[in-house]
Amino acid sequence: MPTSSLAQAAAALSRRLDALSKVSDDAGATTRTFLSPAMRRANALVGGWMRESGLDVREDAVGNLIGRTQPQSAGVKTLLLGSHLDTVKDAGRFDGTLGVLLPLAALDVLRGRGLSLPFAVEVLGFSEEEGVRFSSAYLGSKGYTGRLRKSDLTLSDPEGVTVAEALKVLGFPAALPAAAHAPSDLLGYLEVHIEQGPVLEDRGLPAGVVSAIAGQTRGKVVFTGEAGHAGATPMGLRRDALAGAAEFIMEVEAYARTRTPLVATVGRIAAHPGASNVIAGSAELTLDVRHPADAPRRAALRHLLGAGRSIARRRRLGFSLAITQDNGAVACSRELSALLGESVRARQGSTLSLPSGAGHDAVIVSSLTPVAMLFVRCRRGLSHHPDEFVKKSDLKAALGIVVDFLERLAARTSA
Amino acid sequence: MPTSSLAQAAAALSRRLDALSKVSDDAGATTRTFLSPAMRRANALVGGWMRESGLDVREDAVGNLIGRTQPQSAGVKTLLLGSHLDTVKDAGRFDGTLGVLLPLAALDVLRGRGLSLPFAVEVLGFSEEEGVRFSSAYLGSKGYTGRLRKSDLTLSDPEGVTVAEALKVLGFPAALPAAAHAPSDLLGYLEVHIEQGPVLEDRGLPAGVVSAIAGQTRGKVVFTGEAGHAGATPMGLRRDALAGAAEFIMEVEAYARTRTPLVATVGRIAAHPGASNVIAGSAELTLDVRHPADAPRRAALRHLLGAGRSIARRRRLGFSLAITQDNGAVACSRELSALLGESVRARQGSTLSLPSGAGHDAVIVSSLTPVAMLFVRCRRGLSHHPDEFVKKSDLKAALGIVVDFLERLAARTSA
Repeated sequence: MPTSSLAQAAAALSRRLDALSKVSDDAGATTRTFLSPAMRRANALVGGWMRESGLDVREDAVGNLIGRTQPQSAGVKTLLLGSHLDTVKDAGRFDGTLGVLLPLAALDVLRGRGLSLPFAVEVLGFSEEEGVRFSSAYLGSKGYTGRLRKSDLTLSDPEGVTVAEALKVLGFPAALPAAAHAPSDLLGYLEVHIEQGPVLEDRGLPAGVVSAIAGQTRGKVVFTGEAGHAGATPMGLRRDALAGAAEFIMEVEAYARTRTPLVATVGRIAAHPGASNVIAGSAELTLDVRHPADAPRRAALRHLLGAGRSIARRRRLGFSLAITQDNGAVACSRELSALLGESVRARQGSTLSLPSGAGHDAVIVSSLTPVAMLFVRCRRGLSHHPDEFVKKSDLKAALGIVVDFLERLAARTSA
Repeated sequence: MPTSSLAQAAAALSRRLDALSKVSDDAGATTRTFLSPAMRRANALVGGWMRESGLDVREDAVGNLIGRTQPQSAGVKTLLLGSHLDTVKDAGRFDGTLGVLLPLAALDVLRGRGLSLPFAVEVLGFSEEEGVRFSSAYLGSKGYTGRLRKSDLTLSDPEGVTVAEALKVLGFPAALPAAAHAPSDLLGYLEVHIEQGPVLEDRGLPAGVVSAIAGQTRGKVVFTGEAGHAGATPMGLRRDALAGAAEFIMEVEAYARTRTPLVATVGRIAAHPGASNVIAGSAELTLDVRHPADAPRRAALRHLLGAGRSIARRRRLGFSLAITQDNGAVACSRELSALLGESVRARQGSTLSLPSGAGHDAVIVSSLTPVAMLFVRCRRGLSHHPDEFVKKSDLKAALGIVVDFLERLAARTSA
């Protein structure tokens, strides 16, 4: 709906965020994973809103939702605006979705003000960013930018379904798509996202400009021992895979604690066979390591690989660490970030440049075109949680910034 | 089938153990949990074998399978022989099943030899001993001995189904059954079971007599923290429930290691929400603590409760330890064990008295009648594992011992 009122557009944005949060694979919670039934419904719902904003809507070969202001044609550059529509389990309302729905609201405001942009806009709802279903993130933006590899298609979910099979069921070709654009056709990519950290709240600012995105490595660690009877196997004769895994978790935490701003996390663990009276024969856990610079992250991985091997040797266990994802730190575009900083300063008086500890679709899109990111304050830095919260006044502030940014970019492009 | 040949009866026993191992809820593995479809099929199969041995067969109110040589009548005492038919996940062929099927083979040999016993025999296939489905063990023998409590009926499995509901679905009354017998009507209970430990193998003996069964306490431990973004939450601000759980697992192991013969095990763990990029907001784990004497087991629990609380306090986490099962150490009957020892000595030249680190149905049955247990050597002490193995010659040796024991008891009873 075109409207010249930021307040009206922000209120509509807030209602849409609420409505989208109810599209879920789990009743009573917000959970949408790659290619799930809820993701199909989310694409249908958001696709409808894109059409209301006058966009041509399509889905690409990996289920990304794409809305475009005008057909591709020679000489017209395209600005990309987007984020992801999938979520973690039991998620909040803003992570990802804000960066898809806020640009639609911004386009509505520009239409309400009668401004037509001298460039095309594509609003992107990526189908996969969180890495929940296949323990590997960015499958959506990788598909869009032509960076999907054969090895991505053979990843399998906990039920043993591969990416290729999941795509096939939905009628997608399960091929490796080419990039959606040539880099020379693009102006850049802007991603609006909640901060997911406490800095903006500390500084009392609704929004800030991201300077760089931390590199991150994700891996799967397996310790293997021997299952045995919990009553009849003396402690000294055990090869307890879960005890080895626990020692490793302690080491992951201890190493990262003394190396700020390194963060390292084990978020998922399973022991097999997984009965209270059976010593674990194997234990599987995830590892997530991040740092704004690449060298300390790599050093951490080398250290943890060595530590895991040494724990396993001492305990007569097997050990493996398979890297499932590895992304270097990404610097944001100086030019786009400077322009975005002008908009932030114009709207909220002062701006702040801050790094992102979390990974974002911008990491992958940066391989295709310069990227910029706007962080929006969220309560207590909480995300990946149903209590994730952005104040309505902050939604309006961020919307005002993006409208201002589009106006500045329009002025600069036509100049 | 009556047969006077131990070798023939042992070969038939071996075939039945193989056949029963294929009755499973999981294709390609042996898994039978309380009241599951496979347990219904197991009762039907073993019930048929009981009838072949001339027994009257019934199921009681909690799905125990009971085969009896002659109707209950005044003045005729009953000897109980049995073990359990449920299994852990991905189990072996002998744990539990041996103690149900071997007595049938022994009765066949006695019939083949034309011996009729001066007492009744009940062969018992308990419906639940392993504690897998409801994280609480001995539900079968508790039902048989009239020790089931209201709190047992409200236990729920991982799908949220309660014991009472599971019973109702199968048409059982879901009431609290009385004991199957008055103690004065019973001669005692003999349970044949694989050792599940390495002692008999070390001593080169096919079988031994159990002196006492270790007391065991099982509990559920929960650490609660705050879920958060694995990239955007600095290490110092985390309340990571899984890291707390890992520290607790380390403490469980360290405490037990220095207090032989104490054993303490964490066999199952889950972190929630359980995604690689989310700090765990809660972690749940099982605890299993055993010792042949009661005081050291209680001291261990007090210590671990204190350790858990202190870990939680330091890490700003919540902590709870709920005891789901608590059984004191149980001494076996001197009289029955002495008689069994005579049979062991007569058949294999020497006997050995050894404690059981594992719990058995005999623990519960001891509240109703004196108990004795025969341990049978198993390879590498391995149990709760598909590679669980008893040599055919050891099956025959154990069968010979039980036949000899029944003959001695018959001679003593009629004398």
